[in-house]
Amino acid sequence: MLQQRSSRLAASLSSSLSRSLVPERIASLRCRSLRPYSIHADASVGTKIQDIDPTRLSITKTVTPKELLPPEELIFGRNFTDHMLSLEWTASQGWLPARITPYQNLSLDPATCVFHYAFECFEGMKAYKDKNGQIRLFRPDKNMARLNKSSARIALPTFDPDAMIDLIGRFVKLDERFIPETRGYSLYLRPTMIGTQRTLGVGPPGSALLYVIASPVGPYYPTGFKAVSLEATDYAVRAWPGGVGDKKLGANYAPCIVPQMQAASRGFHQNLWLFGEEEYVTEVGTMNLFAAIKNKETGQSELLTAPLDGTILEGVTRDSVLGLARERLEPQGWKVTERKFTMKELADAADEGRMMEVFGAGTAAIVSPVRKISWKGRLVECGLADNVEAGPIAAQMKIWMEGIQYGDEDHPWSYKVL
Amino acid sequence: MLQQRSSRLAASLSSSLSRSLVPERIASLRCRSLRPYSIHADASVGTKIQDIDPTRLSITKTVTPKELLPPEELIFGRNFTDHMLSLEWTASQGWLPARITPYQNLSLDPATCVFHYAFECFEGMKAYKDKNGQIRLFRPDKNMARLNKSSARIALPTFDPDAMIDLIGRFVKLDERFIPETRGYSLYLRPTMIGTQRTLGVGPPGSALLYVIASPVGPYYPTGFKAVSLEATDYAVRAWPGGVGDKKLGANYAPCIVPQMQAASRGFHQNLWLFGEEEYVTEVGTMNLFAAIKNKETGQSELLTAPLDGTILEGVTRDSVLGLARERLEPQGWKVTERKFTMKELADAADEGRMMEVFGAGTAAIVSPVRKISWKGRLVECGLADNVEAGPIAAQMKIWMEGIQYGDEDHPWSYKVL
Repeated sequence: MLQQRSSRLAASLSSSLSRSLVPERIASLRCRSLRPYSIHADASVGTKIQDIDPTRLSITKTVTPKELLPPEELIFGRNFTDHMLSLEWTASQGWLPARITPYQNLSLDPATCVFHYAFECFEGMKAYKDKNGQIRLFRPDKNMARLNKSSARIALPTFDPDAMIDLIGRFVKLDERFIPETRGYSLYLRPTMIGTQRTLGVGPPGSALLYVIASPVGPYYPTGFKAVSLEATDYAVRAWPGGVGDKKLGANYAPCIVPQMQAASRGFHQNLWLFGEEEYVTEVGTMNLFAAIKNKETGQSELLTAPLDGTILEGVTRDSVLGLARERLEPQGWKVTERKFTMKELADAADEGRMMEVFGAGTAAIVSPVRKISWKGRLVECGLADNVEAGPIAAQMKIWMEGIQYGDEDHPWSYKVL
Repeated sequence: MLQQRSSRLAASLSSSLSRSLVPERIASLRCRSLRPYSIHADASVGTKIQDIDPTRLSITKTVTPKELLPPEELIFGRNFTDHMLSLEWTASQGWLPARITPYQNLSLDPATCVFHYAFECFEGMKAYKDKNGQIRLFRPDKNMARLNKSSARIALPTFDPDAMIDLIGRFVKLDERFIPETRGYSLYLRPTMIGTQRTLGVGPPGSALLYVIASPVGPYYPTGFKAVSLEATDYAVRAWPGGVGDKKLGANYAPCIVPQMQAASRGFHQNLWLFGEEEYVTEVGTMNLFAAIKNKETGQSELLTAPLDGTILEGVTRDSVLGLARERLEPQGWKVTERKFTMKELADAADEGRMMEVFGAGTAAIVSPVRKISWKGRLVECGLADNVEAGPIAAQMKIWMEGIQYGDEDHPWSYKVL
């Protein structure tokens, strides 16, 4: 029932995706007049204001370019390129011209709403250099679509995704010397949107800032796969029906740290989020989860992942793994399924010799093989022999994905920056 | 069952309240070594590092004091006093000496974790001037205890609450000219803690900033009570067992805006959060909710509010209303109850002539009377005659609370700033 109801919110949000928040709308929301009941008006009605216009980009280059770090010293999200891309939005003007400037601090009033009410959402994506030196993005349309969904859900403005991809391309091109040429290296991009209204009233922000910073990163597995061990978390809940667990909001991250620390204190690399009395398997740390098991009745090999029911982050890597599996594994006899599955199902598969492999999927690692899962005081083995660090599906997926990301294979998912 | 499990997390968090995050702890969490299974160590074990020391406060006064606004122009959270109180924390040093400085922007790296993962929590509290010009805070110990619980839940540091109350007192004293003397006016205080680590890795912040800003505010009802109308929200869910809805985290606020905007677009002042298939009544907008009804069986007058089951914000005003009701209404024959109750119970009470009144409770308004609630296509009337804007309990509570807040009545809840 909740899912049906949620569709009302989804419909309203989706209709607002095509336009930004408009001043009339803000004004009417802040007006406290009581209109008669049962006018089911959409809150997002209004005239269109200025969208992102890439032709109005201004560029101020740094006069103190950074020295490049040796590739082996690159650590995820710790060092950034020379520049950043910024776009301001106001409810009355829409999107102001984009600016590329030297990487620099943000100066914000301490009353700014991002500090108090978590008006913030982000994306994680990467730029790669192919063997010809061509810069490529991987499915940037998926990231921009998700950022628009995230921002609309917290009353931040939406934007034209193609215009934003264009701007990101120009930014990456300007800082392209930071993209290492070596296979496995890339430039991690972090588009971020924050509410910048400087008042403490709880309401839709009247101004926002969308910015992109970039951090060169090395391979997640510099010396080959390392399988991780997980602790199933049953005392805390990441997401719930009718909540915002399917959006890439800052709000979904800070509450996950203590359960992660608890798992780490007991020697596990990540925690695995379960949901409900049934203990449905949802996500692992900051990744989606896949399990390959033999079907109990038919013996068929089955690749499972949790469905997009509103409690699962809509991972771009998740979607890509599913797409590749349907295209390339199903012809080999695999069944690829998005459905709810429980921790007990996984444990039964392990006990009955039907467990093939388990892996996380996310932008950072592409795939992250899982060796075992701690659950109810036991360890569920996930199909890897002691001297093996990845199952064949995880290993194959990494090869397929990198082949597309680095342009070895011509594929519509790879976007060339011109 | 979930509640039992949650107590494990609660116990661990509460044991960490007495100390700050320590560097050893951070280090061990970031180390990825796999220790043998079933060491159920507490993640929060470590040596104590430097806590807040009010004697080390430094004060830099503004050289450009602001002009005071006419009282009638004061708007909640829009204008601030001359100064702010700031304390930095690092994992290696603990709390650095507090500083009072001119009110000023924060300068933060765009990679700072507060912008990406919502490492942020806050409090709302007020300073009042009594008829002798004495500054008073209202139950500041409750706010500091809650801030510590909020911060611990998102791996931010905790602190000595008495030391912090001491510092807040000094800050308020310095800016006391901003507290209007007129009854109904006060100085709203916003203690805020943010994570300030400048890296994108998702983990416990290695540094944080605790700051307090202050905004002079007028009475919520300048011309007397105005009852509000609510829309029951059944398509989105604010909080969940095992979640963080009982903490005052930024993460709980941004996701509430769109449902609030939806309610506003249909002419309602606030939305009312229901929970579950049973449609339990939880909270209204950013306030706790109370209902006064006649018991169906006994006819006894009953003051109801939702219990602190982990999905309800632990409001200081809620606790105060309950305390006053138990002390002063129970002797008059009232029953005061914290229990789950449903929207249908309220509707039945309205239909059967047992509805007395409904009101929200929060720091801003103290009490906010409710005229009607839109639910399943009908309007549930909440006991107010057309020409009446508040029920007798709400009106009485406001008088009792203000009597304590403004020092008319000597009461342990009122804290004198010396």
